[in-house]
Amino acid sequence: MKEILKMLEHKEYKKLRQQLEIMKPADIAEILEDLSHKNALFLFRLLPKDLAVEVFSHMSPYDQAKLSELFNVEELQQLVKELNFDDKIDFLEELPAQLVKRILKNAQVQERTLINQFLNYPEYSAGSLMTIEFVDLKKEMTAQEAIEHISKTGFKKETIYTCYVIDAYRKLEGIVSLKNIILAEENEKIENLMERDFISITTTEDQEEIAEIFKKYDLLAIPVVDLENRLVGIITVDDIIDTIEEENTEDFHKMAGLKPSKREYMDSSVLSLTKHRLPWLMILMITATFTGAIIKSFEEVISKVAALAVFIPMLMDNGGNAGSQSSTLVIRSMALGEVAPKDILKVIWKEFRVSLIVGLSLAILNFLRILLFENYPIAISLIVSVTIFITIILAEVIGGTLPILAKILKLDPAIMASPMLSTILDALVLFTYFSISKAILHL
Amino acid sequence: MKEILKMLEHKEYKKLRQQLEIMKPADIAEILEDLSHKNALFLFRLLPKDLAVEVFSHMSPYDQAKLSELFNVEELQQLVKELNFDDKIDFLEELPAQLVKRILKNAQVQERTLINQFLNYPEYSAGSLMTIEFVDLKKEMTAQEAIEHISKTGFKKETIYTCYVIDAYRKLEGIVSLKNIILAEENEKIENLMERDFISITTTEDQEEIAEIFKKYDLLAIPVVDLENRLVGIITVDDIIDTIEEENTEDFHKMAGLKPSKREYMDSSVLSLTKHRLPWLMILMITATFTGAIIKSFEEVISKVAALAVFIPMLMDNGGNAGSQSSTLVIRSMALGEVAPKDILKVIWKEFRVSLIVGLSLAILNFLRILLFENYPIAISLIVSVTIFITIILAEVIGGTLPILAKILKLDPAIMASPMLSTILDALVLFTYFSISKAILHL
Repeated sequence: MKEILKMLEHKEYKKLRQQLEIMKPADIAEILEDLSHKNALFLFRLLPKDLAVEVFSHMSPYDQAKLSELFNVEELQQLVKELNFDDKIDFLEELPAQLVKRILKNAQVQERTLINQFLNYPEYSAGSLMTIEFVDLKKEMTAQEAIEHISKTGFKKETIYTCYVIDAYRKLEGIVSLKNIILAEENEKIENLMERDFISITTTEDQEEIAEIFKKYDLLAIPVVDLENRLVGIITVDDIIDTIEEENTEDFHKMAGLKPSKREYMDSSVLSLTKHRLPWLMILMITATFTGAIIKSFEEVISKVAALAVFIPMLMDNGGNAGSQSSTLVIRSMALGEVAPKDILKVIWKEFRVSLIVGLSLAILNFLRILLFENYPIAISLIVSVTIFITIILAEVIGGTLPILAKILKLDPAIMASPMLSTILDALVLFTYFSISKAILHL
Repeated sequence: MKEILKMLEHKEYKKLRQQLEIMKPADIAEILEDLSHKNALFLFRLLPKDLAVEVFSHMSPYDQAKLSELFNVEELQQLVKELNFDDKIDFLEELPAQLVKRILKNAQVQERTLINQFLNYPEYSAGSLMTIEFVDLKKEMTAQEAIEHISKTGFKKETIYTCYVIDAYRKLEGIVSLKNIILAEENEKIENLMERDFISITTTEDQEEIAEIFKKYDLLAIPVVDLENRLVGIITVDDIIDTIEEENTEDFHKMAGLKPSKREYMDSSVLSLTKHRLPWLMILMITATFTGAIIKSFEEVISKVAALAVFIPMLMDNGGNAGSQSSTLVIRSMALGEVAPKDILKVIWKEFRVSLIVGLSLAILNFLRILLFENYPIAISLIVSVTIFITIILAEVIGGTLPILAKILKLDPAIMASPMLSTILDALVLFTYFSISKAILHL
């Protein structure tokens, strides 16, 4: 990086170009993202055309958009023409419709129609992830003929390692791996090599489901078909890895009460960051006033024994933390397909048993701590410990159950994480605490 | 699933076997995991040998261990012999050392030595992820000869799509994709097709770093070399997808104050679940007493104006939620390599500006809410709103900074998530709240 900047500064363009040519496209993309607009543009124009296209497809959508704002229309047209089909769609999706029109002005009618069709697939669907650059074979071919066909047409394909056998109407009849073709006798017919029980998806399939299928069956690519079972595209594993990370990011965000964002943190404006945080904070703030109302109804108790207020934060945190542990475990297990709604009773029973041990341990620890290190009456120590015990049982059972209930109600389990759960638990915990206090202290 | 159980019950073994033969190994594995021990063993023994091995390698380590407890030693030896090398290592790793010895008793010395070497690689390292089943080529071969070599030796290889060019001393000289071989002229030398600037890793590389490399360069496989650059194994993309999910699970767990566990939730015993939760809950409970101490030092203030206690939960939750948003965003961005320690000042500046807008919005909303819907003196409404404003600034700036500081100190940023952060923020928030109260109310 420093080297590159130095060469730019000293105008050693020949040396710079040589250096860039031996670098990996992904590394050059990373450097471009860190450079100033002017330098990035200059460096990009210095790249040999093939490399430039590869570098561009490794950049984040945001940086692609930023860089392409500096291009003239001819450059954009050239770039779009050279990009792989799926990268092309990803890029065009980020541009304003007017600009897309101008870029596609000179494209062939057929190409333009196809691109517009792809731009219309819903985000996060198979249609928007797939590419049309796959190898198709006919079942009458021999292994030898198939290899010849692949070597002639394979250059610009997204993958040649899984090939698709289609009939005259483009209906998908089978899938065959290049491995099976290579390992077969030269004269073996593709028909006898292909797998007929293959897994396929339709254009509307959600990306989360697709990722599940890849993980379960260890696939390198999956075919996408339309409602008449005609092959319309394929999705390859490298795009699925990005999808898996996207889905995980979405879960991390939701579980922290954030509106999920696809844009990188450093690329997000202050306003956009604010917009993703404020809604949940407002909702949670308003909801927290219910907890306030509970305390208010016990105001008399507090004014008599102000010491009770001392333990409010610890009790609240305890409930929040225990609930967050249970809900995170269950939410994550559901995301990985390990826990299903049908397991709800098993989860409740498991959480209940865990909470008995955890609750008892914490209650005893707390009782001893207050007894030994603080000088509160034993009644208060008892009240706090009993509340801890009940808190943990409530927190773990509710924390484990709510995400499953959300799933049953077709909501995203991730919203039942810490922020939402804490607010619910706070109210329960404080109500328990003050009720016990009132009873034991006869207030 | 129901069908299978029915056939088992009615002893329709022939029909059952036919049904199983057309199913995907991953689906059969899933069914086996849900069956009782006795039925699972029976079904497994019903499978044709090749399919049985594939099914077994799709099962989770826990279920593999459970099922294999029912096998006799001969069955285990047979199974281990047939498993792919990396699946073999994964399986043996889970078994007690005594049993491994008995299983390997009849293996050849060379094989046994190799297995023991692999069993000694640290968990989560390249050594423990890699397989030895790769295709090696010589640079003098022609494309035609390479394809012949692959078709002869490729059957039991983990992948044939990336091939490794080694010299007489097994030093790795280059990498060539099957695509480039297939697309080349028959007489082209491998030497001219191979990539010399390839990415390789050593056996001690951590799996998190390896996953980063796969994501960045869109690889299907990566070579693993020893310190003398001799090729010792390869890692393929399907194993990396599992690794990515494992790393994400670890982060989810850590961020919820859980000691990470590789075992699935439903497979974990109550005691093991307890052991993973209790340590952090205890630490956090003890730490929360500091917050209690702050309240205690203001006990007089509370006993005079008990109404102040009403707002404690809302203020604490606000701080916790805002801090959790910032820290989650930054932790996730660092995990994805988008934010680095060098960005710390940019992050602080960004969080500060976001927190000004968020804090002001929430403070105003809260001020109006209390003014319009509750009958507290305006002074209290003011105190609470000012505290909210300061809380949000503290929460977002500290929440965004702590994970980066953790990274700089070589700690895992994920521990600076909600539970830890909330405890820190609680103390700051309550101190702020009561100090302001004391000043404004002249207590």
